[in-house]
Amino acid sequence: LIRRTREAHLLESSASLLSWDQETMMPPRGVEHRSRQLALLARLAHQAATDPVIGELLAVCESDRELTADPLSIPAVSVREIRRHYDRATRLPAALVEELAQVTSLARQEWAEARQASDFARFRPWLERVVTLKRRAAECYGWGAQGEPWDALAEGFEPGCTARGVAEVFTPLRPRLAELAARIAAKAGADRPLTVIVPPEQQMALVRFVAERIGFDFTRGRLDLSTHPFCGGTHGHDVRITTRFHESNIFDGLLSVMHESGHAIYEQGLPGSEDEELIGTPMDAAVSLAIHESQSRLWENQVGRSRAFWTWCQPQLRSLAPAAAGLGVEQVYRAVNLVKPDFIRVEADEATYNLHIMVRFELERALVSGDLAVADLPGAWNARYKEYLGLTVPDDARGCLQDIHWSLGSIGYFPTYTLGNLYAAQFFEKARSDMPDLDAQIEEGQFGGLRAWLRRHVHAQGKRYRAAELCQVVTGRALSPEPLLRHLEGKFLPLYDL
Amino acid sequence: LIRRTREAHLLESSASLLSWDQETMMPPRGVEHRSRQLALLARLAHQAATDPVIGELLAVCESDRELTADPLSIPAVSVREIRRHYDRATRLPAALVEELAQVTSLARQEWAEARQASDFARFRPWLERVVTLKRRAAECYGWGAQGEPWDALAEGFEPGCTARGVAEVFTPLRPRLAELAARIAAKAGADRPLTVIVPPEQQMALVRFVAERIGFDFTRGRLDLSTHPFCGGTHGHDVRITTRFHESNIFDGLLSVMHESGHAIYEQGLPGSEDEELIGTPMDAAVSLAIHESQSRLWENQVGRSRAFWTWCQPQLRSLAPAAAGLGVEQVYRAVNLVKPDFIRVEADEATYNLHIMVRFELERALVSGDLAVADLPGAWNARYKEYLGLTVPDDARGCLQDIHWSLGSIGYFPTYTLGNLYAAQFFEKARSDMPDLDAQIEEGQFGGLRAWLRRHVHAQGKRYRAAELCQVVTGRALSPEPLLRHLEGKFLPLYDL
Repeated sequence: LIRRTREAHLLESSASLLSWDQETMMPPRGVEHRSRQLALLARLAHQAATDPVIGELLAVCESDRELTADPLSIPAVSVREIRRHYDRATRLPAALVEELAQVTSLARQEWAEARQASDFARFRPWLERVVTLKRRAAECYGWGAQGEPWDALAEGFEPGCTARGVAEVFTPLRPRLAELAARIAAKAGADRPLTVIVPPEQQMALVRFVAERIGFDFTRGRLDLSTHPFCGGTHGHDVRITTRFHESNIFDGLLSVMHESGHAIYEQGLPGSEDEELIGTPMDAAVSLAIHESQSRLWENQVGRSRAFWTWCQPQLRSLAPAAAGLGVEQVYRAVNLVKPDFIRVEADEATYNLHIMVRFELERALVSGDLAVADLPGAWNARYKEYLGLTVPDDARGCLQDIHWSLGSIGYFPTYTLGNLYAAQFFEKARSDMPDLDAQIEEGQFGGLRAWLRRHVHAQGKRYRAAELCQVVTGRALSPEPLLRHLEGKFLPLYDL
Repeated sequence: LIRRTREAHLLESSASLLSWDQETMMPPRGVEHRSRQLALLARLAHQAATDPVIGELLAVCESDRELTADPLSIPAVSVREIRRHYDRATRLPAALVEELAQVTSLARQEWAEARQASDFARFRPWLERVVTLKRRAAECYGWGAQGEPWDALAEGFEPGCTARGVAEVFTPLRPRLAELAARIAAKAGADRPLTVIVPPEQQMALVRFVAERIGFDFTRGRLDLSTHPFCGGTHGHDVRITTRFHESNIFDGLLSVMHESGHAIYEQGLPGSEDEELIGTPMDAAVSLAIHESQSRLWENQVGRSRAFWTWCQPQLRSLAPAAAGLGVEQVYRAVNLVKPDFIRVEADEATYNLHIMVRFELERALVSGDLAVADLPGAWNARYKEYLGLTVPDDARGCLQDIHWSLGSIGYFPTYTLGNLYAAQFFEKARSDMPDLDAQIEEGQFGGLRAWLRRHVHAQGKRYRAAELCQVVTGRALSPEPLLRHLEGKFLPLYDL
């Protein structure tokens, strides 16, 4: 069973390398052949993962009581997760898989053009087709007795996640975040971002230095340039992160590299890095998208946007980015924590970011349940932006057409961003209580303690626990909105004299 | 049939990209997983290419007289070449394929250590096993009535090539080359290579400029660094060449890039670049290794080591490599044509290179036929170096252990290098007679005429002709030693005042 699982992983990781190459290295004219290579590898990986032999082998393993006696043992976890993956992969009829691939491929193009023209009417019939197909997919997957169709879709990104569970955390969080954002916005007024011109080669030297310092292992990874930053590669011994630089905003590139390094350090800390036999098995894979995101956000926000970090990092600018050497620690700390409610999620600051996610979660949940018609999406979107962020959305390009996700059929994905922020805050709070001198360590540029803590409690666990269980095991509590609120209020109230 | 052929090609080209990445980009610790990915892709590609369905489809196509009526039509050529590939791939028993893979993998390591220690006795048992297995492979493949086992092995690199045919060209060439080399060596005496220190970044700018100028299309390719230069990639729209730089020898890097660009321009000029439907089919593939090598050697030697080329290129050094700007055209021309008989093939000059190949061809032919025992290889090697090159081989590291090829089982490969030189000379002579102002064009840095000639006569033909037929069709004559001798004598006799 493991041998066959590894084979599917070898194909997936080959495809992953080809995708990385496409974004970073491939000459422009290579794109058509590359898409054919990727389609074939995806088909072969799907075949390998859904081979009926896997079902037979799973049944044999599951009936072996000794093998699965301890549900947290490596064999039991492996069998449980391979079963989960096999069932999901075999539950969709081939015709639906194919139709989804075709429709989302076209919908993605239509979305890009509709966004360009800020023309929702153009995208509407495509989103309707996507939602209809995804609802059919949800019916094939099925959902829990107390659940709803959205759960079946979210399960693909966040095992065990339900709309009800998300709402339980988001509902109390939302008004408090909205109030915090409004108070800051009233005060921040005309604050402007810092402009310091630093050439890309210097930024690259700086971000490589910081990435290595926080723990990205360059003997097992690379850092390159791409249009959109991402973390890819093939497995823990070969992790590829990317970034891009804005000549006038050195902090954007640095924080994006800390974010991707957080993903990479997770990958490099999975159990396969200690035991090669585990590579390609569930024990060598991340828990979920939200837990992955918790690792990137923790290094980006809890560390990279802290005063302690800049107390250490600012003096490094003297040699690495001389043009920024004259900035004071407080000036930089303010600059990386500038709050300004705006329309675009990917440009949002830490205080308002989660409000963007809540809008999307509520709307996609209603779209899939049928409570909201696609035609009514722009109105519902704009009403929520007004209510939660106090903003009047000027057009659909800056409104409900801004994200690619739904066009790709990625419904159930958005909440993992905010869940990631919540887990990050809860993990970091616990790490700090376990290591009371954590901030002092960071001020000294010592990140090994935090990294070792994360590795032991999160990375080395592989897929042993579901996200909610992991949170309980690591922090002693269920996921709660409080740590994130404490983190945000603890930072922004003094920063803005509130 | 074509759809299935393309599928095997998609897998092979994915593996090719992963290999390129391994040599240029992969972090060091990624090597173990990469070898597993490559092994799986090789197995899947082999499965795809030997699927019995291909045999059935081939039989149907072959029985369709209309389809193959014109033997030079695209369908007929495709069927012929797919048949050739299918028969070779299916003729080896799986057990022999596996044993060859295992033995050569170990032999390669033993060879590396034996060479390091200059200890032939250590490599001997491994080479014996390789030769025994390759002889068995040759028996599985079979050979012509007038032929011998070596032919069956060479067929994998050079379709239609026979030992007898190679000997017919090499035998008259050898004494004349040996005499030329000896006369030059007596005269050249203490000539030393030029030493000019040019930093790698400047060399990179220079070689990119020259590669683009001679016709390497960077929208369909890349140039990167690797330990050993090579030309890889996935197909004509994505060709990856590599090089390495010696800080004190600017010409080495430049000529290596011209060599690899020659391979790349061939790949970029194959019929698939005009008709995407042909990608992955035999019409979009090179004729043979020798014809591929003719394209690289032509740009490296006929162009890159000519006075005409340096008349154009030397002035470019002023801005691109200021440290070399003071050199005169004649000084550079002499430097890139320095002749010095020596032990190492890969460092050999144009005048002596082919003598190295002849030694290897004669010895591997005798090893496979059984006329030479592996134990007697060092003695036979050293005797020939004495006779052909006038050299006393000091040790086996600089003797019969210097090349990796035989450890990999690549028997029948070496002659393609010299055949490449012969085809290059014969093609170039014909191009010059078709374009009497060719040298003047090159002096002006105009390479489009030569490139278009090669494209029309060689690249655009795909696998339509076998190498020997192509030579006849393009030059009006069978392959002959005379053009290469005229090229070498025409250059070296005046250069060394002989």
